[in-house]
Amino acid sequence: MRYIGELRDGEMLKEVYLCKQKQVLKTKAGKSYYSLLLQDKTGTLDAKVWELSNGIETFDAMDYICVDGQVTSFQNSLQLNIKRIRKCQEGEYSEEDYMPVSTKNIADMFKELLVFIDQIKQPHLKKLVDSFYKEDKDFVKAFQYHSAAKSVHHGFIGGLLEHTLGVVKMCDYMANNYPVINRDLLITAALFHDIGKMSEISRFPENDYTDDGQLLGHIYIGTEMIGERIRKIPNFPAKLSNELKHCILAHHGELEYGSPKKPAIIEAMALNFADNADAKLQTMIELFQASDEKVEWIGYNRYFETNIRRSSEN
Amino acid sequence: MRYIGELRDGEMLKEVYLCKQKQVLKTKAGKSYYSLLLQDKTGTLDAKVWELSNGIETFDAMDYICVDGQVTSFQNSLQLNIKRIRKCQEGEYSEEDYMPVSTKNIADMFKELLVFIDQIKQPHLKKLVDSFYKEDKDFVKAFQYHSAAKSVHHGFIGGLLEHTLGVVKMCDYMANNYPVINRDLLITAALFHDIGKMSEISRFPENDYTDDGQLLGHIYIGTEMIGERIRKIPNFPAKLSNELKHCILAHHGELEYGSPKKPAIIEAMALNFADNADAKLQTMIELFQASDEKVEWIGYNRYFETNIRRSSEN
Amino acid sequence: MRYIGELRDGEMLKEVYLCKQKQVLKTKAGKSYYSLLLQDKTGTLDAKVWELSNGIETFDAMDYICVDGQVTSFQNSLQLNIKRIRKCQEGEYSEEDYMPVSTKNIADMFKELLVFIDQIKQPHLKKLVDSFYKEDKDFVKAFQYHSAAKSVHHGFIGGLLEHTLGVVKMCDYMANNYPVINRDLLITAALFHDIGKMSEISRFPENDYTDDGQLLGHIYIGTEMIGERIRKIPNFPAKLSNELKHCILAHHGELEYGSPKKPAIIEAMALNFADNADAKLQTMIELFQASDEKVEWIGYNRYFETNIRRSSEN
Amino acid sequence: MRYIGELRDGEMLKEVYLCKQKQVLKTKAGKSYYSLLLQDKTGTLDAKVWELSNGIETFDAMDYICVDGQVTSFQNSLQLNIKRIRKCQEGEYSEEDYMPVSTKNIADMFKELLVFIDQIKQPHLKKLVDSFYKEDKDFVKAFQYHSAAKSVHHGFIGGLLEHTLGVVKMCDYMANNYPVINRDLLITAALFHDIGKMSEISRFPENDYTDDGQLLGHIYIGTEMIGERIRKIPNFPAKLSNELKHCILAHHGELEYGSPKKPAIIEAMALNFADNADAKLQTMIELFQASDEKVEWIGYNRYFETNIRRSSEN
Amino acid sequence: MRYIGELRDGEMLKEVYLCKQKQVLKTKAGKSYYSLLLQDKTGTLDAKVWELSNGIETFDAMDYICVDGQVTSFQNSLQLNIKRIRKCQEGEYSEEDYMPVSTKNIADMFKELLVFIDQIKQPHLKKLVDSFYKEDKDFVKAFQYHSAAKSVHHGFIGGLLEHTLGVVKMCDYMANNYPVINRDLLITAALFHDIGKMSEISRFPENDYTDDGQLLGHIYIGTEMIGERIRKIPNFPAKLSNELKHCILAHHGELEYGSPKKPAIIEAMALNFADNADAKLQTMIELFQASDEKVEWIGYNRYFETNIRRSSEN
Amino acid sequence: MRYIGELRDGEMLKEVYLCKQKQVLKTKAGKSYYSLLLQDKTGTLDAKVWELSNGIETFDAMDYICVDGQVTSFQNSLQLNIKRIRKCQEGEYSEEDYMPVSTKNIADMFKELLVFIDQIKQPHLKKLVDSFYKEDKDFVKAFQYHSAAKSVHHGFIGGLLEHTLGVVKMCDYMANNYPVINRDLLITAALFHDIGKMSEISRFPENDYTDDGQLLGHIYIGTEMIGERIRKIPNFPAKLSNELKHCILAHHGELEYGSPKKPAIIEAMALNFADNADAKLQTMIELFQASDEKVEWIGYNRYFETNIRRSSEN
Repeated sequence: MRYIGELRDGEMLKEVYLCKQKQVLKTKAGKSYYSLLLQDKTGTLDAKVWELSNGIETFDAMDYICVDGQVTSFQNSLQLNIKRIRKCQEGEYSEEDYMPVSTKNIADMFKELLVFIDQIKQPHLKKLVDSFYKEDKDFVKAFQYHSAAKSVHHGFIGGLLEHTLGVVKMCDYMANNYPVINRDLLITAALFHDIGKMSEISRFPENDYTDDGQLLGHIYIGTEMIGERIRKIPNFPAKLSNELKHCILAHHGELEYGSPKKPAIIEAMALNFADNADAKLQTMIELFQASDEKVEWIGYNRYFETNIRRSSEN
Repeated sequence: MRYIGELRDGEMLKEVYLCKQKQVLKTKAGKSYYSLLLQDKTGTLDAKVWELSNGIETFDAMDYICVDGQVTSFQNSLQLNIKRIRKCQEGEYSEEDYMPVSTKNIADMFKELLVFIDQIKQPHLKKLVDSFYKEDKDFVKAFQYHSAAKSVHHGFIGGLLEHTLGVVKMCDYMANNYPVINRDLLITAALFHDIGKMSEISRFPENDYTDDGQLLGHIYIGTEMIGERIRKIPNFPAKLSNELKHCILAHHGELEYGSPKKPAIIEAMALNFADNADAKLQTMIELFQASDEKVEWIGYNRYFETNIRRSSEN
Repeated sequence: MRYIGELRDGEMLKEVYLCKQKQVLKTKAGKSYYSLLLQDKTGTLDAKVWELSNGIETFDAMDYICVDGQVTSFQNSLQLNIKRIRKCQEGEYSEEDYMPVSTKNIADMFKELLVFIDQIKQPHLKKLVDSFYKEDKDFVKAFQYHSAAKSVHHGFIGGLLEHTLGVVKMCDYMANNYPVINRDLLITAALFHDIGKMSEISRFPENDYTDDGQLLGHIYIGTEMIGERIRKIPNFPAKLSNELKHCILAHHGELEYGSPKKPAIIEAMALNFADNADAKLQTMIELFQASDEKVEWIGYNRYFETNIRRSSEN
Repeated sequence: MRYIGELRDGEMLKEVYLCKQKQVLKTKAGKSYYSLLLQDKTGTLDAKVWELSNGIETFDAMDYICVDGQVTSFQNSLQLNIKRIRKCQEGEYSEEDYMPVSTKNIADMFKELLVFIDQIKQPHLKKLVDSFYKEDKDFVKAFQYHSAAKSVHHGFIGGLLEHTLGVVKMCDYMANNYPVINRDLLITAALFHDIGKMSEISRFPENDYTDDGQLLGHIYIGTEMIGERIRKIPNFPAKLSNELKHCILAHHGELEYGSPKKPAIIEAMALNFADNADAKLQTMIELFQASDEKVEWIGYNRYFETNIRRSSEN
Repeated sequence: MRYIGELRDGEMLKEVYLCKQKQVLKTKAGKSYYSLLLQDKTGTLDAKVWELSNGIETFDAMDYICVDGQVTSFQNSLQLNIKRIRKCQEGEYSEEDYMPVSTKNIADMFKELLVFIDQIKQPHLKKLVDSFYKEDKDFVKAFQYHSAAKSVHHGFIGGLLEHTLGVVKMCDYMANNYPVINRDLLITAALFHDIGKMSEISRFPENDYTDDGQLLGHIYIGTEMIGERIRKIPNFPAKLSNELKHCILAHHGELEYGSPKKPAIIEAMALNFADNADAKLQTMIELFQASDEKVEWIGYNRYFETNIRRSSEN
Repeated sequence: MRYIGELRDGEMLKEVYLCKQKQVLKTKAGKSYYSLLLQDKTGTLDAKVWELSNGIETFDAMDYICVDGQVTSFQNSLQLNIKRIRKCQEGEYSEEDYMPVSTKNIADMFKELLVFIDQIKQPHLKKLVDSFYKEDKDFVKAFQYHSAAKSVHHGFIGGLLEHTLGVVKMCDYMANNYPVINRDLLITAALFHDIGKMSEISRFPENDYTDDGQLLGHIYIGTEMIGERIRKIPNFPAKLSNELKHCILAHHGELEYGSPKKPAIIEAMALNFADNADAKLQTMIELFQASDEKVEWIGYNRYFETNIRRSSEN
């Protein structure tokens, strides 16, 4: 496959890409044309269809299309002038080529997660966790595939799983080292803390904020998801339910970061530390990956509000 | 009835009060005694039972008890030395004498609220509102009785109703004057914006924060209550559901005031304005009531972060 | 009239516009030319006069000029190449065509305002209000014509009147529903709260911040205007004068929003709520008007610090 | 004179004090008595008049009274039991003994100020300054006598003068060392920057916030005082008037410190620096004076938000 | 030994305590007496020596003294009336009885720390760490004994070691799980991050802020200690030195928490997370220990700015 | 010399400039070329070397090079097309022509500083100051040459000296006028307060943040420099050392401005006022210099967070 990141000015191209956006515009002369945004896992490419002839099949945004045209340069960026478009069928392309994906093996990560799940002993929490992670195949499939962000950290296929595993592991460390922590409660909360993102952000290839995502946010959505499931588990202790839901609500740590309550129990605090640490360390890792290896100071970062620098190698 | 606010040093007393708190303590000499907090609608009174004899019947905190003893003065405060206690039966006392209550007629306020409810036309919202305010008798009874706060504004019987009515009326004003507002959505949101307080704060006479109240907060609780009921109404439009839930989530206006989302739609903004205005105007009214009428400057108020002054009379 | 918003690339044009800005520049070759910004109520247009010949009459910024030329396209924007310019006389054009104007009838709004004015009973406040709104014809004319902002909300002819009326009406609602409020004081404060803007922002067509506006601000200017007039009314009670001036000083609600004092009396609070609500609801309305009706999420707004969305229709 | 700071438990006393507060209270037995707060420059003393007999002349708060009684100790504080009270006449006491007063000579400080006043050359500023500091005898008398605060820094007779002189001198330093500064403008602004305090705080012996002080603040009041006087000076340049008023409005430097505008011109910045430096250095000096000389770390200070320490001696 | 926490009103007592404070005061009658604060590991006790006779040996604050007297009750607190005092010699008492001490074994914790120290491979870091933790016996002794705070978390003997170990272990976890982290750098930084506290807080029994502590703070002091030692290690790489010192400077994470730089490298971030998590989890543990086990909600905590609650047991 | 600020489109040029940056890039066709940034004291100029022939000598960034080429215009900016480059020798150019330099005479300023240095009497402070400013020739040379900033205020040769002198003089003013100030301590602190900038920012012509600058900051670096030197002065009093170092650490005044401690002693406060005032007044002066003299309002400034205006002339 010819990846977008490798294209050069002037080359003729026939390749399948994901059509991320499609706009019908008019030239000043009043003639309609298409302005497209094509995507593969290496990036995006602006494309134009100036002649809406027979060679251009009907397609929509989010379709995979086979495009035929020439790469040109416009205002320092590459652009594709498309002559033909054919809509592709499932099987003609491999989704992984078109979307960013975790560098780690998804099946392996999920297996690692199951080990922690199997250690939960409190019977109601166990029932709750199993009802999602063992019995709900649709959930499991979607969970493994989802990203944890539109951009920033873990914004790729498998990202939600990778982040959840990272948080669960750090919570496991804390439960082992600070025995006052209720281990089952903390691990359960870690497993569920970001599942609201499965509604907040749409599935790949779109991976964008949904209407509920913007209006309600993953903190509310995830807590309500848990609340609904808990009501179906007989005799789930009210106190434990409150604690679990509190952990999810409070996991951003501060009201100004979108948690409607600050952590009031030690497990909510521990979850907040683990979530924050995993998210920020991964953000740093992605910053390093996205910048030239030879550059030490990789510039000001708005999220961290400071300049960032690679450190001496191990 | 002899109210707490009228008691004087030295008087002999036999009267029924609500026992708000009960502690079993020991004197330095090691003898057990009771330290009680008695309450009626005019205030609270510290009381001691030094001799735990036959004359002291068994009772618990939150019981209504008939106490027999003498008022004394201790460190500038009045205190009651109790000789006898008898636990009272329902019927021996009138709850209204023991708890703060709205100065307005509760039945009248509820009738006024029903007028607004009957104006809602959008069928799903109508079904949702009716399911609470018309069909759910337990809800209606509890709603009318509940306070809207432990202290601060509307912290009395009927307070939740009075505040809800105040907010609904101001929202009605705004819907009438700014036609871009979706009237049915805004009135519905106003009707439900604080119902989470029915779980956040326990019923009178206790009127204190509950475990869910402290861990989850009325914003989350109320939104989840609506979410649960919506799922039972067939074909409730997802977009409308998001909007309504968003209004409740966002009604504190800012993340740092406990809303996990800022108002993104005009109805959420309008609800925030109405809630804020009714709450703060009522807080001022209660400050005026609680202070000497002749004093103009009634001192620094931490909630408003300024000194407060009565203004010239109309 | 051919409005700027309707022009197309290539068309020949002869039309009267307001010249908002005029710069004399030099080409690289050292030849002088004019760079103009033309305006009508539909927008602005960049224009160039490359040849400063006899056909170009003498004119200044803020003159109405009749321009003769051709529309071209430069870097995706339209531009006018002007061949001839004639300065227009009053009468040749209608100001309303060249500036944004309230969608409501100005005379009707002012009549509505007078109804509230006539309800003021306190004699000193009545004298003060009448001295501006009934006896001072220059004030009344300028007030009706003024905008309430350079951009943001109510930034059009009649905007100050429209906003003042909106605030007065909401204050009237509050005075009616919270009887502790001193109605005459609140309505008077509402009527005057933004009159400082008449000095802070210059008259249309300029509608820009003045030197006093930037150095002193409308809060100070308006309060001083009232203070000066009060000194001419015999026996105006000092206390009432302090209260009225305080309402104006404090109407932004917080020090960080430019009020040198926080609201200390209930009327100042009520005015702050009404001002804030009317300003923000109108800002939302203008955001909706400025964006494509079919787009639900109209993007991040810096003033509200959140993404904004249209809600379901009534 | 027997000062309050030197009184001892048990001593018999006949002395003149200022009666700062007077309350008529009732004992539990229902008998009326007076609770007084007596003051001299060394502090205050709680006093009681238990028998309201002939020996107790009629007097009010803020009167100077000759009291006759015995010092006792109550809850670790001294208290005076008064037997006789006689209201004093002017001449029987010297005000300086009853109020805190500047350690510097008031006449000398005013002379030093006049030197700076005489250096002002710009004719309109000169006229304005002279109209207060040379021609307005009442102003001059009151200005010299006034404090600059209720407590904190310069809260004593002559305090406003001492602070004004300190600020003028530092402004003079800055004008000399940063020639871009308009010297006359800066010195004039410094001379007037706190004159609003003459209305914000009542005269000694009361020295408390007034109604206008609390509602309007010295920043607004002072600026309006200048504005009013400027209108009486023919042809005072509008630009210069704006600049001078801006300096006063902006002299607190930040909106959150009560300035409705931030400094926009260099003179306003310089004034803010000088005012801030003189106020804080003097606050430190007063903290040192109020604490034991042998103590190095004199504790946490809320104004500075840090622990404060004396430094090594010169 | 008779601990302070077990004393009762009226008992006669002869016991050794640490004299934390000693003041010489005068009764109203002018007679000198001593007011002492006695301490053991269970708390403090107010004590008075009314008769300064032969039975009272010479002693100073921070001496261990054997006191002979009777426990009485004064204003709801116990107080000791001392008849005799004898200054004790080393050997007569065991320091551990008089000061709070870690619940963990100090020698064991130090051994655990040495394991991590031995894993450091980078030669310059190894030399630096060894120069403190292996070769500097005085340092090792003082480090093991020191507390990490005056109060709040780890404010006991062995506290600095316990906290350092907690942070090192969490850093070890992070280095193992996020391979981009430079392990040697992070572990070294963790080992040194709070050594400045050895100068900031005086040794037990005083355990109070020192003059350098208050003026310079442990962040600066610790970084300078490392900087000084680094200069003695030949060819220590400048870049590595900068990174290590940066980690210590930045370990509070934000400027407003006293770090003069925000974390710019991933090791500084990781250290900040580990320090924060260990400190806050330990603070929670100490809050639980200090409160009644049966109470769920243990009240508002100023450090966490929320109410705190025990969670369900494991 | 032909300065960059005077170049015009089309002119042929042969001149020596400092090569601030040098990048080797490739055209789309794959051919290598140089993209340079040339600098003199009047500004910078983008330059290209399209043909890497014999005429282009070997050179690096930060070399002075003699360039031969033609000025062209590209996207509204001037650009130089270079045909030949020759690397220059010291002596062929005068550094002062290539870098911004103080408008004041460096030798004169240093002499003025020495007067203050000679007034220091406290023997240890005197020894410390002399060890830098009199005995350390390298320090003196570098100090005189250094800038005080990368951009903002005093970002030119001699800037550190000019700013230090400005601060010392204002401190001298304060020591003279507030006698409680320890003069020697304050003047010494002022002399050293920014010397950390000599490591934080590299020497001209680079004048950019160094690795230690970014990781440690000039506050830490400067304090450590003083700490190191103090250790070499026998019997330097610990208290005085703490005070001096505290002044440097605290001279930014607030934690959020990068000081790890707030000023706790009066000299630290005074230094903070002087540093702040000199820096901001100079920033204003540079803003005036950088803008058109005829423009009154010179626009919004992010550092001051307000619009800035020239004031009326003296």
